[in-house]
Amino acid sequence: MASMEALEELLAALPDEVVITAPEQMEKYRHDWSRNPPAGMPVAVVRAEDAEQVQEAVRWAARHRVPVVPRGAGSGLSGGSNAVDGCLMLVLERMRGIEIDTAARVAVVEPGALNAEVKAAAATHGLWYPPDPSSYEICSIGGNVATNAGGLCCVKYGVTTDYVLGLDVVLADGTLVTLGGPRVKDVAGLSLLKLFVGSEGTLGIVTRAILRLVPAQDARSTLVASFPTVAAAAEAVLAVGARMRPSMMELMDNASLNAVEDYRAMGLDRTAGALLVAQSDAPGPRERQDRGDASRLQAAGAAEVFATDDPEEEDVRRGPPPGLHRDRGARVALAGGRRRPGARAARAARGGGEDRGAVRRRDPCRRARGRRQHPPDHRVRPADPDSERRARAAFDDVMAAAIALGRHHHRRARCRARQKRAPCPTSGHDVMALTRRVKAALDPDGILNPGAVL
Amino acid sequence: MASMEALEELLAALPDEVVITAPEQMEKYRHDWSRNPPAGMPVAVVRAEDAEQVQEAVRWAARHRVPVVPRGAGSGLSGGSNAVDGCLMLVLERMRGIEIDTAARVAVVEPGALNAEVKAAAATHGLWYPPDPSSYEICSIGGNVATNAGGLCCVKYGVTTDYVLGLDVVLADGTLVTLGGPRVKDVAGLSLLKLFVGSEGTLGIVTRAILRLVPAQDARSTLVASFPTVAAAAEAVLAVGARMRPSMMELMDNASLNAVEDYRAMGLDRTAGALLVAQSDAPGPRERQDRGDASRLQAAGAAEVFATDDPEEEDVRRGPPPGLHRDRGARVALAGGRRRPGARAARAARGGGEDRGAVRRRDPCRRARGRRQHPPDHRVRPADPDSERRARAAFDDVMAAAIALGRHHHRRARCRARQKRAPCPTSGHDVMALTRRVKAALDPDGILNPGAVL
Repeated sequence: MASMEALEELLAALPDEVVITAPEQMEKYRHDWSRNPPAGMPVAVVRAEDAEQVQEAVRWAARHRVPVVPRGAGSGLSGGSNAVDGCLMLVLERMRGIEIDTAARVAVVEPGALNAEVKAAAATHGLWYPPDPSSYEICSIGGNVATNAGGLCCVKYGVTTDYVLGLDVVLADGTLVTLGGPRVKDVAGLSLLKLFVGSEGTLGIVTRAILRLVPAQDARSTLVASFPTVAAAAEAVLAVGARMRPSMMELMDNASLNAVEDYRAMGLDRTAGALLVAQSDAPGPRERQDRGDASRLQAAGAAEVFATDDPEEEDVRRGPPPGLHRDRGARVALAGGRRRPGARAARAARGGGEDRGAVRRRDPCRRARGRRQHPPDHRVRPADPDSERRARAAFDDVMAAAIALGRHHHRRARCRARQKRAPCPTSGHDVMALTRRVKAALDPDGILNPGAVL
Repeated sequence: MASMEALEELLAALPDEVVITAPEQMEKYRHDWSRNPPAGMPVAVVRAEDAEQVQEAVRWAARHRVPVVPRGAGSGLSGGSNAVDGCLMLVLERMRGIEIDTAARVAVVEPGALNAEVKAAAATHGLWYPPDPSSYEICSIGGNVATNAGGLCCVKYGVTTDYVLGLDVVLADGTLVTLGGPRVKDVAGLSLLKLFVGSEGTLGIVTRAILRLVPAQDARSTLVASFPTVAAAAEAVLAVGARMRPSMMELMDNASLNAVEDYRAMGLDRTAGALLVAQSDAPGPRERQDRGDASRLQAAGAAEVFATDDPEEEDVRRGPPPGLHRDRGARVALAGGRRRPGARAARAARGGGEDRGAVRRRDPCRRARGRRQHPPDHRVRPADPDSERRARAAFDDVMAAAIALGRHHHRRARCRARQKRAPCPTSGHDVMALTRRVKAALDPDGILNPGAVL
C-alpha cells in the first residue's frame, strides 16, 4: 500500500484534476460491468490526458511497487479492469483522439476512443473498421486491444489483432515504446506488437493504436433460416460453409429466438428448434446471390429461409440492445472464439462436446444448467438477491466447463483467475512457464494488472 | 566448438542416417541461395525426421552450448539459414507431412513441406492457402513462418502470420510447446504464437504449423494498364485504391517490363514508362467489373488498359521463373512490405523517398545504382567474377538505404546484420532493449540462430 508521502508525490507529479483519491469519487472506477468478482479499493485513480501522464503515473507506481490496473470504458464483463486493493487505477477514458489517414488507410486512435467512434470517423471517409464486439457502442479501443475483442463479423473479418498495425505502449518501468506503424510491414527485431494485443494490461499500457481500415462494406443482405433442431442448423452451416463466405453468422436456439421475438416482434417462427442468421456483404448482384444461398440452405435442411436487407430486421442478429439488459439487470454473457463456427457447432451438436459455445449462442449457460439444475434464468435482478448467487454459480460452471474443454474466450481476465487456476489442457505447463518468463522479462516486479490473464 | 566426445554423443542419440559430419556432405547445407554473406562451417548437420529428433538435437546443442541454425528448403536470399562456424545445422527438409482438415478448414503442416505442396493439397479440397512468395514452388512453410513471408497477394490477403493458427515449437532447452490450435481463438495466457512468426529461428524451431485455409478463389481476371511514367502509375493506384480491392497488384518500370517481354513476348508496350498489373478475384460477373475497373484506371491516367483471364498472359505478374534466374546466375532481389502499395508508391514517386521499394519492383537496385554508378546489371554470373562484387556493392547500398529510411523487409536475416547494425529510426533503442529482454527470456544462452534478426 502506498504511503501518504508516496501519494503526495503522485499528486505533485500530475495536474490536480487528473488524480482522484476521494473514495466516493473513485467508486465509479472500481469495477467494470460484471460486478463480478467483487472489486478492491484503489489508493488513487489517474484519469490520464496523454501518454506522458500515463508514463508519469506508471513511473510512480514502479518506484513504489504499486499495482497498476488500466481501465478503458469499463464495459468489460469479466473484471479485467476491476480494482485490486491498493492499486492505482489508470483510466484512459479522456484519451479519445481519432485521426483518419486516408492515404495509408489507417486510423490513429487513443485508447479511450469508443469502437463506434472509430467506425463513425472511418465511415466519413468511405472506410470501415470491421471488429465489432456486441458492446461496440460503449466499449473502448484500448479495451478491445487489451482483450483482442472479436465481434459478430469476426468469422469473415477476423478479430482486433488482425487490424492492429502499430501500438504505443508504456512499459512497466514507464518507458514508452512504439511498435509497428502504418508504413512498416516488419519492424526490426522480433514481432513484439501482437504480444501486447490480448495481454489485458499485464505487459504495458496502450496509449495509441494504429488500426488498419478497409473499404466500406458493399450493400449487404441477411438470410434467416429456420431448422427443426440446433444440430440440423449446425450441420447446415458445415454443409454450406465451403460455398458461402458470410460476413456474419449466428445460431440461436429456441429460447434465444423467443427472447428476441419478445423484445421486438418480427414474425420469427417461435416453434423453430433453431434459427440461423447469415449476413453477406459479397459484391455483385445481391438478389441472385441470395437465391443461391437460400437454395443451398434449403438443400442442407432448412425448413424455411427468408432474406432481408431491411436494417431493422437485420437487427435480429444483435438481439436486445445493451440498454434492455441494463433495465432487466446485468446479463451474464459468454461468447467464445468464433472463427470456425460451422465445424465447431456441428461437432458440439453431434455430441463431441468439444466446442460448445464456439458459435455465439444466446443461451450459453444451458450446458452448465443441465448439470447443476440452475434455473433457466441467468439474469441478475437487483430486486432478487438470490438471482446473483444463481447467476454466479451458473457462470462458474460455464467457466469451469470451458477450461476443462480447453476453450477460452477473450473475456477471461479475473473471472477466469477465480477458477482455481486449473491447468489448461491445450496449453499446458510448458506454455504457462513460457508465458511467465515473458511476463517476468517485461514486468519483473509484477505491478501491471496483477491477477489478470496469468 | 563441440568436442569429439560431444559429437559422439550426438551420433549416439540419433539414427545414423540423420546426422552428417563429413564436410563434403555438409557443403550443400551450408548456405541458402544468396551465397551472401559467406557461410561458416557447421560441426554437424541433423536432417530431422520428426519433432522428437529436433528436440534431441536441440537438447544436445543446449548441453554443449552449440549454436543451432535451422534450415527449411534453403531458398532464402539473405543468409538466414547460412551456417555459422561450429554450429549445428538443423535441417527440416525431411519433415514434409501435410494434412487437410476440411471441417476445421486448416492445413496441419510439417516445416519442410513446400508452400506449393500446401497449396496443392488444399486445392484438392476446394480450399486455398493464400500466402505466395515468388519462390512458392521451392520455399518451405517453415521458412515462410520464420520470415513471415508475404507474396503477390498480400495486399489483399495478408502475410503468413495472418494464416498461422497454431505452432509446435521446440524451445532453446529442447522443450516442445504447442501454441494456438485449430479450434481455439485465444489460448490461456499471453498471445505467444505470433511472437515466433518472423523470428527467424531465434526463439525456437517450428516443427508443426496449423494454417488457416480459405475457400478457393473465384475466377479471376487480370488488368494490365500502361502509363507514361512510374509516378503516374503510382498516383493511379492511389486514385482507384478506394474502389478496387485487387487480390494482387504489381508495378513495373520500363526496364522491368522489357525484361518480361524479352522472356516471353506477349505484346507489352515496350515504350511505356510503367505497367500496372492488377488482378481481381471478387465474385460476381467478371466482365462488368473489369469494364468498371478499366474505366477507373483510364480516368486515373492510364494510356491503355487490357484485360485477360488467360493464365499464360497472367504470368506477366511473375516474370521470368526461378529456373531462368538460375541459368543466368543468382539474382539479387528485394521485395518490401506491400500492404499499402498505393500510398507508398505514390509517396515514393512524388519524391518523398520514404517508401521506395515498398511496391514490388523488378529493378529495386536503381536507387542505389543512381548514387554509386553501379552498372545496370545486378545479376551474378559465375563466369564473371567481378559481377559478384558489383552485385554485393549494389545490395549493400540498397540495404543501407532501406535501414536509413526505416524500411525493413522479411529477408533481413544476416544480410542486414552485416550493415554495421545501424540503429533503426522507426524502432529505436527502447524497442531493441525490449527485444533483447524477450530473446534472453526465451534463449538465455543465445544458441538459437545467432546473428539473425537481432
